[in-house]
Amino acid sequence: MKRKVEVCFSPAIFESQHRSDQIVVIVDIFRASSAICYAFANGVERIIPIADVEEARRYKSDGYLVACERQGKKADFADFDIGPENFTPEVVRGKTLIYSTANGTQTIQKATSCKKVVIGSYLNLTALSKWLVEQDSDVIILCSGWKNRFCLEDTVFAGALVEHLLASDCFITECDSARASLDLWAMAEDDLLGYIEKASQRSRLRTYELDSSIELCHAMDLAKIIPVMKSGKLVAELV
Amino acid sequence: MKRKVEVCFSPAIFESQHRSDQIVVIVDIFRASSAICYAFANGVERIIPIADVEEARRYKSDGYLVACERQGKKADFADFDIGPENFTPEVVRGKTLIYSTANGTQTIQKATSCKKVVIGSYLNLTALSKWLVEQDSDVIILCSGWKNRFCLEDTVFAGALVEHLLASDCFITECDSARASLDLWAMAEDDLLGYIEKASQRSRLRTYELDSSIELCHAMDLAKIIPVMKSGKLVAELV
Repeated sequence: MKRKVEVCFSPAIFESQHRSDQIVVIVDIFRASSAICYAFANGVERIIPIADVEEARRYKSDGYLVACERQGKKADFADFDIGPENFTPEVVRGKTLIYSTANGTQTIQKATSCKKVVIGSYLNLTALSKWLVEQDSDVIILCSGWKNRFCLEDTVFAGALVEHLLASDCFITECDSARASLDLWAMAEDDLLGYIEKASQRSRLRTYELDSSIELCHAMDLAKIIPVMKSGKLVAELV
Repeated sequence: MKRKVEVCFSPAIFESQHRSDQIVVIVDIFRASSAICYAFANGVERIIPIADVEEARRYKSDGYLVACERQGKKADFADFDIGPENFTPEVVRGKTLIYSTANGTQTIQKATSCKKVVIGSYLNLTALSKWLVEQDSDVIILCSGWKNRFCLEDTVFAGALVEHLLASDCFITECDSARASLDLWAMAEDDLLGYIEKASQRSRLRTYELDSSIELCHAMDLAKIIPVMKSGKLVAELV
């Protein structure tokens, strides 16, 4: 029997939509889920997502490597802002990284009651699709959005992932959000960076002078890893 | 200065997104907002939206005309289900109608803290656009969705309304949901009934043998009226 894939457009809707037997794919293209995949591609050992800034600060004083950002600015005590470009092999290989952002981290914590929580981005799109096909569960793709609002860049990625899953012939969808995502992905895929120009978060990144992340957040299939949440920490499964 | 229009995809997101100085346009294409516009087009005097079934039952025993439906079935005590086709001139002219549905009515009640609440559907699309242009407020289009989930038919309509407002040159949008709605409307508009075939609510109406509402819910510009909420009751403003 075919399994079901659906898309949830906001953490605020998640409660009404998810079931505990689904695998949750967390998406925050600008920039948490892209950065997490990039760090694992470059050999980070584990990533601890932290919602609270003060907890991130305590980790820093305990000697951990800390990425922490609020309102587009690196926290004063942190080693990095949350952009993927920070997490090069020489910086992260074999390390534990503390990762704290208002949006993406809180979304991850919202999903922890579910069967399995994994992280998705363009960087691991093909690997993630294969991995999801090999599991034995329905899938819900949870877009982090922005302050509970719908956002375009997460939705377009969700469409790409739904397309991969449907193409495997192991999945169907009966979900309007998944259908809308597919249609938006179809409009965007030939010129992804062009399409994403109209996303609000794209403008925010420009305002904060964080443009340097944009291309890396759309780099296809750099990573053959699936960041999986285990006991509050993200670790990598290889595909 | 241009005013702003945005779209909210679910009552669950509304809290995070709206401001009290916006005019709220409630949309529930299948079928509450379409039916309400149709009833006003046919001369109903006022409509009282009621979330609670028992309250609707009390109105019936007080002699009111009552439309009430749950899970695709007319409530046993009610005069009608909630489909627009019930509300012909000979039935509703000059009357007060009690209108109770799980989804649409609860959305209306969610919005009542806002500056002004009006009802939108294809039946009053052009009239509503003109009316909104003449007001002096930002606009948020609230899609009722289905049990807090995103739904396609409300979104496509939201795109049509956003297009009208932007074309007036009095509005701009900086909202990702509005941009996605515009793109989905662009995909759908040449064959609206065909596109809407993939909406989950379309299938539900087929299952409940409620197909008779579909075309009427997409009838363009039948009504030059704006249903406006005043002290818990909907009354019509003429354009």
